[in-house]
Amino acid sequence: MKDLLIHELKDIYNAEQQITKALPKMMEACSSDRLRMAFEDHFKVTEKQIQRLDKVFEMVGEKATGEKCKAMEGIIKECESMMSERADKSVMDAALIACAQRVEHYEIAAYGTVRTYANQLGMQDVVKQLEMTLKEEKQTDALLTEIAEQAVNIKAER
Amino acid sequence: MKDLLIHELKDIYNAEQQITKALPKMMEACSSDRLRMAFEDHFKVTEKQIQRLDKVFEMVGEKATGEKCKAMEGIIKECESMMSERADKSVMDAALIACAQRVEHYEIAAYGTVRTYANQLGMQDVVKQLEMTLKEEKQTDALLTEIAEQAVNIKAER
Repeated sequence: MKDLLIHELKDIYNAEQQITKALPKMMEACSSDRLRMAFEDHFKVTEKQIQRLDKVFEMVGEKATGEKCKAMEGIIKECESMMSERADKSVMDAALIACAQRVEHYEIAAYGTVRTYANQLGMQDVVKQLEMTLKEEKQTDALLTEIAEQAVNIKAER
Repeated sequence: MKDLLIHELKDIYNAEQQITKALPKMMEACSSDRLRMAFEDHFKVTEKQIQRLDKVFEMVGEKATGEKCKAMEGIIKECESMMSERADKSVMDAALIACAQRVEHYEIAAYGTVRTYANQLGMQDVVKQLEMTLKEEKQTDALLTEIAEQAVNIKAER
């Protein structure tokens, strides 16, 4: 069970690193200031989440390393192919939100899983760290939904 | 905006088709009866969801076709590589749940996105169809969490 926990941690670690590489491109591609700010904030939060994972690896006595996360690779590939298309600014913003919410939901599923494993293994200090991140991911997802519903999609519809 | 809606619908359509191919393998690989039943149920539900998408394509006046969903491809590849590993039965079940929850969260993000687009475009009949599926995906995710917390992980810990 602990092996599985570590396997999942390595998957998330790599996924987070892929996200830090993708976010700057998404910031460049978007038009809405509010959305860009949300991406910038999430970039900073992601860096903190990686540091938190470093701490978790230390807690479980493992070296912090990643294992290629093919799922995140697929999500980001789709995002990049979207960004390479010609689209109205607001439509592009809506598409970027769609990509970002897939990223967030992947993370929610992944962190939820390791949190459950850590809980079953009685590692309460690890659970605490993972829950902080899980809460942040859910907040980001909710913020993206709010931005999508309020501004971006309304503009794209015009 | 409508183009983006159709693009997203094609993505989900392909993702659902990939899921119907993966689920039978997951049923075979799992040991817990409760988990197998959950996968079997979800297989039937997925088939209905595909029919619902057929209806949605009709509503928006498009031919029902898929576009390779690279994200789902990545999630399923990870799942397959997990299934090919040797693991204790209960650990394998926990790993299968982890995969399935990534699948569910991808779908929650994807259906949530198209629902928002359809809503902004004033397509209330489409919104209604998508919301039924969204509700089912969330229920499946909650059921998987329950199974993970109650039975599978406790066994794996032993």
